[in-house]
Amino acid sequence: MAVKVGKQTWIPSRKPVLIQTGVVAGPLEGQGPLKNWFDHVYTDPMAGERSFEGAEREMMLNACYTALRKADRTPESVDVFLAGDLLNQIITSSGSALQLKIPFLGIYGACSSSAESLIIATALIDAGFAQTVLCAVSSHNSTSERQYRYPTEYGIFRKPTAQWTVTGAGAALLAAEGRGPTVTCLTIGVVQDYGIKDALNMGAAMAPAAAATLVRHFADTGRAPDYYDLIVTGDLGRFGQRLAIEQAAKNGGFDLTKNYQDCGVLIYDCEKQDVHSGGSGCACSAVVAYGYLYRRMLAGEIKRLLFCATGALHSPTSMMQGGTIPVIAHAVSLEMLSGALP
Amino acid sequence: MAVKVGKQTWIPSRKPVLIQTGVVAGPLEGQGPLKNWFDHVYTDPMAGERSFEGAEREMMLNACYTALRKADRTPESVDVFLAGDLLNQIITSSGSALQLKIPFLGIYGACSSSAESLIIATALIDAGFAQTVLCAVSSHNSTSERQYRYPTEYGIFRKPTAQWTVTGAGAALLAAEGRGPTVTCLTIGVVQDYGIKDALNMGAAMAPAAAATLVRHFADTGRAPDYYDLIVTGDLGRFGQRLAIEQAAKNGGFDLTKNYQDCGVLIYDCEKQDVHSGGSGCACSAVVAYGYLYRRMLAGEIKRLLFCATGALHSPTSMMQGGTIPVIAHAVSLEMLSGALP
Repeated sequence: MAVKVGKQTWIPSRKPVLIQTGVVAGPLEGQGPLKNWFDHVYTDPMAGERSFEGAEREMMLNACYTALRKADRTPESVDVFLAGDLLNQIITSSGSALQLKIPFLGIYGACSSSAESLIIATALIDAGFAQTVLCAVSSHNSTSERQYRYPTEYGIFRKPTAQWTVTGAGAALLAAEGRGPTVTCLTIGVVQDYGIKDALNMGAAMAPAAAATLVRHFADTGRAPDYYDLIVTGDLGRFGQRLAIEQAAKNGGFDLTKNYQDCGVLIYDCEKQDVHSGGSGCACSAVVAYGYLYRRMLAGEIKRLLFCATGALHSPTSMMQGGTIPVIAHAVSLEMLSGALP
Repeated sequence: MAVKVGKQTWIPSRKPVLIQTGVVAGPLEGQGPLKNWFDHVYTDPMAGERSFEGAEREMMLNACYTALRKADRTPESVDVFLAGDLLNQIITSSGSALQLKIPFLGIYGACSSSAESLIIATALIDAGFAQTVLCAVSSHNSTSERQYRYPTEYGIFRKPTAQWTVTGAGAALLAAEGRGPTVTCLTIGVVQDYGIKDALNMGAAMAPAAAATLVRHFADTGRAPDYYDLIVTGDLGRFGQRLAIEQAAKNGGFDLTKNYQDCGVLIYDCEKQDVHSGGSGCACSAVVAYGYLYRRMLAGEIKRLLFCATGALHSPTSMMQGGTIPVIAHAVSLEMLSGALP
């Protein structure tokens, strides 16, 4: 039986293992500093499909099939498929579920969906509902930008605080048994609202949520930041990362200046690649965590990782109606308990 | 530890109890045959708010607070809040989560979200992640119609197969212990696509998914339809219900003509209320199941209920791109194991 510690944190009793991942990325991501850590890089943002939405689905499916192939598993051997994306009605996820034919539960946590899927997968495995769960998320710059902001064809002027929605997809296979990073602890976020109304400054909107969840995680577990080799947030970008450091110090007295990075900063060379504050989107945290960080964990370079994915839960309708941006962050502890190699 | 039976069905070991519900409905639903089974009926579709979206959020929150009040619980005593709705980026759910301040996991299964939330809640409770989970879904005719089809102000001609999106919200409190209907068995659906492209004929799109999940449930459990006092689907409407009966007979040899009803047919007087084929929307299955059927279970009139909520997983974008409608259905067995009164 899982144990609840503090207010928002759980320690599963049957701790699932991240036995394999699949990571695919778009052209711009494939030119960035993490290019060698992806399983596949698309040179064409259309990925051979007729629409950007079709391309995003192709990417999620490719990430899923890659993870399955690397684990030598078939879709039939997977008990549950958990997936989420940014598109209205998460059509990327349901379109992928249609192909995979695995019992499907759709989730929506915006860019926190990667962590949300790991949390639900952990509960499903801990309860004995599943031996193996496939988790997937995706985003695509051209599908997201036109849905949330402006069609990319407009070439609209972007603010320095704006982030670049990552094109790509990440899939993670969690299993009751196996070798690899183990999910040892989870902190489920509470929705917060700090009054931000600017959809071109998502980092500022999400940073306090990340800080709140990290502070809560440390308080609930009694761990200090230095328990972890690395703490990463999902997609705060450069401005948001600075804010999160400030907020964690101010609200919890925790020092994040030593071992804390942000996936949105890691994925691009922010100066050279003209992405302003950094990457965002569901895929941002997933391709960095399931590609780069997962492999560094397997190589023994990171033994304890705290993965905190943040989500901005607004919609274009809520923004047009003058609403603020509600935000959330979930944290997942991944630890190498049983040797480095899977 | 939960037991998996067959391909898509699970029997939880620590079976959660539906200890309380909260159900609110809009004006049209409040004139229908189930009007006396709702906790609150709004006479104004705006519910005192400035927008239809605000009204939908007010309804979800009212349903949640009603369930909590009836159970004599506070939001602080609830471990996890699971919610979903039909709006882009499920803003009703995240807006409600912001007020409730309960650790939140957003879900999206279109009109299957009610059953999806019960499934995830069951896993969370079975794994010991939660003692109490609050599940909520909502829909609003005016928010849905303008998002998926046409603004209601257009007064557009509706086809006989069209359904009426239910205005309302339903909340269910699941707990590890207590009295009330118990979740004894779950069947998680697989996404299917039967090539339907008509968003004004959702019943036809979803009926085969309902039939497939019911047939799978009977095959996995070895139960026949007559094991249940009542089998209900979520929102197939009159046309869809007929199709589901045909499909279950054809594909599984199961007779659904005796104890099977559809929430979309039950909620309105389809002839007099000009709703054509019946009700639809996330709230349809929830207000009927958590209002009418829950109280009939408590009264001892229904001892075994199979609740099968169906979802159409399309989006306006996918429809405009010429896509078909992928569909899913999840089934939840609710049984009165320990007496009639909570």
